Amino acid sequence: MINETYKAMLGGKSVIRTLSEYATARGAEIGYDNVFDYSLGNPSVPCPPDFTKTVIDMYETAEPVKLHGYSPSLGLPEVRATIADSLNRRFGTQYTAAHIFPTTGAAGALSHALRAVTKPGDEVITFAPYFPEYQPYVGGTGAYLTVVPADTDNFQINFDAFEAALGPQTAAVLINTPNNPSGAVYSAATLQRLADLLRARQAEYGHDIFLISDEPYREIVFDGDEQPYPANFYDNTLTCYSWSKSLSLPGERIGYVAVSPTATDAELIVPMLGQISRGTGHNCPSSTMQLAVAKIIDETSDLSVYETNMNLLYDALTSIGFDVVRPGGTFYIFPKALEDDATAFCMKAKDYDLILVPSESFGVPGYFRMAYCIDTEKVKRSIPVLEKFAHEVYGL
Amino acid sequence: MINETYKAMLGGKSVIRTLSEYATARGAEIGYDNVFDYSLGNPSVPCPPDFTKTVIDMYETAEPVKLHGYSPSLGLPEVRATIADSLNRRFGTQYTAAHIFPTTGAAGALSHALRAVTKPGDEVITFAPYFPEYQPYVGGTGAYLTVVPADTDNFQINFDAFEAALGPQTAAVLINTPNNPSGAVYSAATLQRLADLLRARQAEYGHDIFLISDEPYREIVFDGDEQPYPANFYDNTLTCYSWSKSLSLPGERIGYVAVSPTATDAELIVPMLGQISRGTGHNCPSSTMQLAVAKIIDETSDLSVYETNMNLLYDALTSIGFDVVRPGGTFYIFPKALEDDATAFCMKAKDYDLILVPSESFGVPGYFRMAYCIDTEKVKRSIPVLEKFAHEVYGL
Repeated sequence: MINETYKAMLGGKSVIRTLSEYATARGAEIGYDNVFDYSLGNPSVPCPPDFTKTVIDMYETAEPVKLHGYSPSLGLPEVRATIADSLNRRFGTQYTAAHIFPTTGAAGALSHALRAVTKPGDEVITFAPYFPEYQPYVGGTGAYLTVVPADTDNFQINFDAFEAALGPQTAAVLINTPNNPSGAVYSAATLQRLADLLRARQAEYGHDIFLISDEPYREIVFDGDEQPYPANFYDNTLTCYSWSKSLSLPGERIGYVAVSPTATDAELIVPMLGQISRGTGHNCPSSTMQLAVAKIIDETSDLSVYETNMNLLYDALTSIGFDVVRPGGTFYIFPKALEDDATAFCMKAKDYDLILVPSESFGVPGYFRMAYCIDTEKVKRSIPVLEKFAHEVYGL
Repeated sequence: MINETYKAMLGGKSVIRTLSEYATARGAEIGYDNVFDYSLGNPSVPCPPDFTKTVIDMYETAEPVKLHGYSPSLGLPEVRATIADSLNRRFGTQYTAAHIFPTTGAAGALSHALRAVTKPGDEVITFAPYFPEYQPYVGGTGAYLTVVPADTDNFQINFDAFEAALGPQTAAVLINTPNNPSGAVYSAATLQRLADLLRARQAEYGHDIFLISDEPYREIVFDGDEQPYPANFYDNTLTCYSWSKSLSLPGERIGYVAVSPTATDAELIVPMLGQISRGTGHNCPSSTMQLAVAKIIDETSDLSVYETNMNLLYDALTSIGFDVVRPGGTFYIFPKALEDDATAFCMKAKDYDLILVPSESFGVPGYFRMAYCIDTEKVKRSIPVLEKFAHEVYGL
């Protein structure tokens, strides 16, 4: 018989995906240029020309049998060493190739990391607002996800609620900074307080609590700032990364888990990730992609458009009268809706061809997400429409 | 704490991988040309030049944001349609895009298919000799694998043992034809008898029994024969495929699950595979690879070298006095060892720099596997060494 658990999941369609499909259909009616589609987090800038050149060069010059051959089950050794070296240069860490496990993007990284440090029945804590796919990532391991309510003043961590939630049942804490959907960048003070609290609770409970840090937006930070590196604050950290956003390669499925050398059993965790792969059919990302990202390890796409768009939208939303925390990074902004029911708010916005994502699936009621990974020209054209919508429907 | 289940798996190193690493190390001592390395099933012929041209063309001409953008969670619609059309042309099937789910190779395909049609505690039956990774693939779902003893006369199916093993607990049967490691190609008669038996047992037990057919060697069949298409014999079939062998792309991780349109709940299974992906972090194979294989859908590498090598080895082994079933396909041959203890036999062969894989991990004692995806010139040079080994150690 087909599996009833997965069959029962068929009803639950992603609200982001549904809105994106609506935007595409509406675009077919009135021209996609006229749909202000802020639904999907798909990068809008091309990959660096060096990435394209690198791949073409490999295809033109490398021996095909070698280029397309099996990767060892823990990834290509030279690629793992290159990733370790790059992290060490940037963050002063002490990774070696033995701490790096290449994965099919952040989804692959998170699902491996979660399996390595939890067992069925364990608790994983995350913080609202959070990426809705954390539910299946955690649920797929047999652990369960507990969501700590948001600190809506600044979308850092609500430590009162977090302290109350932590308990002996907690095996791991999952953070995402810079954050989807709020755009918040966790400060050094936030990371320090998080680390201090986890160390105290480890001692109190007599077992490890692992920090799983999901960092695909690490390179998209505004105002010349940088994301403090979470693994530098806390020993038991597994860093999960994807080149989806920094190199604009979401379809290529390439990322990694980096196991902090200071973590308990650090030397065992990468071989365990290899064992986990055998049970999920993951078996390494593409060899060619591993080689390609390693060859341009310190490059990114031109990410400046996201800051331009953020400033335009933040200024416009503020001037219209929205209550909004200024994002420190990512390509998302997360304003308060103009009525308590965020879904009702977003449905009304649809009448103006403004495609906004209501916040309920991110674990916070009453907000909405705009993914401004779109052309700046369209952001500009959307501003009078936002003004008109807020004025006509809400009297602002 | 780190997960004790995965930690406990660290001891179990693959004998194939261990032998392959030995061969590489020995090659560093005496020159790899002098090591007759029959350990690994890595294709030895290059991908078709059209594959390389197609990828370079995409990188040179496609818009990067679109080329490297997210694939829909069920795969690119046009790629799914192309795969369905190709199967229909070749096998007279009735697939549509809705029945095709692109995956990261056969490992990804099998782990999805198994989760779709089993629940934890169910039984999955396979036939010795079998690919050792079936153990983690099945174990990872929470089901358990029952291995039916081999029919060593011809490595078709041992139906007496199979009939005795089947029961109400059986949720799925997993076949691999052409077969790794035996090289057997299941005949139409075998597949018909298998299908008849499964239909009878479905009726008796009052529930579906799914056939999961693992077919990465489908295009490597000798003597101008073809592999009869298993899904044409049995309605409840999920076909798992990889381009690893036919296009010599094992490192690119690209394959699919094809759900027979005649299967129970056929329309639900692909969306369920999408839900399964969310829990394992699979999230589609590379968009570029999906597009590339679709563009050369009916091509293969020049696979003729495998038949050349098989004939050379089969004739030599037979003439030396080995008991061996002539392979109908793949790039493996599976002779009987010259003593009961296959591991002891293979250890003695190592002294002659013959790297042979003992059969225990394939579920059959007393045999060994040779992966003859190597240069024909080396196969020829290995024959006098095989003769010398059999003569000096076993008096043949």
